[in-house]
Amino acid sequence: MAVYTEVTDNDVDRLLAQYDIGGAEALKGIAEGVENSNFLLTVDGGTNYILTLYEKRVNVDDLPFFLGLMEHLAGRGVTCPLPVHDKDGNLLQTVADRKAAIITFLTGRWPKEITTGHCFAVGAEMARLHIAGEGFALTRQNALSTDGWKELMDAVRAEADRYETGLSAELDAAMHAIVPAWPTDLPVGVIHADLFPDNVFFHQGALSGIIDFYFACNDMLAYDLAIGINAWCFDEDGGFRNDCAAAMIAGYQSVRPLEAAEEEAFATLCQGAAIRFLLTRLYDWLNQVPGALVKVKDPGDYIRRLRFHLKADGFNTYATERD
Amino acid sequence: MAVYTEVTDNDVDRLLAQYDIGGAEALKGIAEGVENSNFLLTVDGGTNYILTLYEKRVNVDDLPFFLGLMEHLAGRGVTCPLPVHDKDGNLLQTVADRKAAIITFLTGRWPKEITTGHCFAVGAEMARLHIAGEGFALTRQNALSTDGWKELMDAVRAEADRYETGLSAELDAAMHAIVPAWPTDLPVGVIHADLFPDNVFFHQGALSGIIDFYFACNDMLAYDLAIGINAWCFDEDGGFRNDCAAAMIAGYQSVRPLEAAEEEAFATLCQGAAIRFLLTRLYDWLNQVPGALVKVKDPGDYIRRLRFHLKADGFNTYATERD
Repeated sequence: MAVYTEVTDNDVDRLLAQYDIGGAEALKGIAEGVENSNFLLTVDGGTNYILTLYEKRVNVDDLPFFLGLMEHLAGRGVTCPLPVHDKDGNLLQTVADRKAAIITFLTGRWPKEITTGHCFAVGAEMARLHIAGEGFALTRQNALSTDGWKELMDAVRAEADRYETGLSAELDAAMHAIVPAWPTDLPVGVIHADLFPDNVFFHQGALSGIIDFYFACNDMLAYDLAIGINAWCFDEDGGFRNDCAAAMIAGYQSVRPLEAAEEEAFATLCQGAAIRFLLTRLYDWLNQVPGALVKVKDPGDYIRRLRFHLKADGFNTYATERD
Repeated sequence: MAVYTEVTDNDVDRLLAQYDIGGAEALKGIAEGVENSNFLLTVDGGTNYILTLYEKRVNVDDLPFFLGLMEHLAGRGVTCPLPVHDKDGNLLQTVADRKAAIITFLTGRWPKEITTGHCFAVGAEMARLHIAGEGFALTRQNALSTDGWKELMDAVRAEADRYETGLSAELDAAMHAIVPAWPTDLPVGVIHADLFPDNVFFHQGALSGIIDFYFACNDMLAYDLAIGINAWCFDEDGGFRNDCAAAMIAGYQSVRPLEAAEEEAFATLCQGAAIRFLLTRLYDWLNQVPGALVKVKDPGDYIRRLRFHLKADGFNTYATERD
């Protein structure tokens, strides 16, 4: 679930007094999302909003970037939640000692059964997001790029073999292969950096919006696509879905064609994306708290993805659909 | 949280094709409730409903009683969710291999900070519910009355001291005191039997509805009030809130005055209510599954309540407000 903080009626009434959207008819905790507390807020007349309370994993200094980015993108045709301004023009509030924001409610649901149609649509929307992000005034470094991986690796090295014997050495070897090969001269811009299926809504078969910009940052655009390949293009048994990958890349290129250098670096970017999610999941797995509300995700999925990408035959592995 | 079962888009589309309420705009798992899976279902035009999937703790044979009761009560002025009929007039569906129902969305929130005003309103609404329940055609035995307690006691006896040394003997002694004194000649009818704060919504200071009828049954009316006293009238440290109890009883009596026999038996009913919740919580505590989604409730609160009620000075302890 994802409700870590209790919100009293007084909290809600005090919050809504700052806005011009009416009083609260209902507030229900939502059982999705893992980083923050999310509530469905229904106001007078029945309009739904999302109230998000930012929990400890989010750096409050980053919130103006995240909320400003949503506003910037929504103003440029990317369907994403729009943070609502209060009467004084502010996007950010304090509720129950947490920073908080009211954002608009998006139609649709995230897809539980991934099709190539979903993947094409996600690729195309990701490229539109990359283009729409141009001109956004704020910047945010990617805290989970190579330097962040090294810190995580230092934090898990001694214990990684608790998950699987030999894992620590395997990860060190992978890091030694990937980090020196990490590209530095590819097109950069604002990326979502966490475009997993549960962050993309579809309605009546069409992509209806993207949510959860709380890992967004400035980094290589093609790295976002590599994250998408990892997130959408493996089946439940860990098998690579070449049809989905080819569809996502085709969708992306239908809006923004990749440059030759991006294609050349693509397998490395996929390896990096796998190690990034592998390291955070392994860290959480090694440091899980008994009785915690959120189930720790199994890092094993990303060990298998990493091994796959390390053997990939370059861009061809991903972009060319095989029979 | 309370989402045990995943619902696919196909499930939702197939379900809503049975109804005349439009297509699904969104479906979000709700992080409240512990027995069933609950989703907020938003349909075309933005109207909210609740979709409930009944999980294994609910006996599907009881569902016509629960849903029929909600309809019966709503038709008699008790604000509660109204099960929605499909095009064929059915209330009950099958979704993802579970029995399921769509019910209306109630305005309001359950109170996080209990006041005497809440307690008076709950008492009065409970009495209205008891009166409105007259004439409901179906009946359901209370599976958690004295026979049910004995079964639970048999199931926890050998292990109860794992929670607290001496608890098993203390509970046996309490059962020996309470069960023979359990009244048999009090007014009976349909009771809610689980009227805890999280099942009562308030909006703008007024009670706006009662939810979760999945323990409702035929039993002594005053036993429902005794459950309410246990649920609403103790503070977080376990201290009895006489002001709240007096308010709840006054609220109840403002609608349906208690008979002398109900007042005489009241402390016994409160003891029975405490042992009923103590036994189910202790059972769940002793049989908790590592990694389960729902946090087990601490039975300790009800050990303290039971001890309090066993020392009570009859009805006077509850109904008479002291300075």
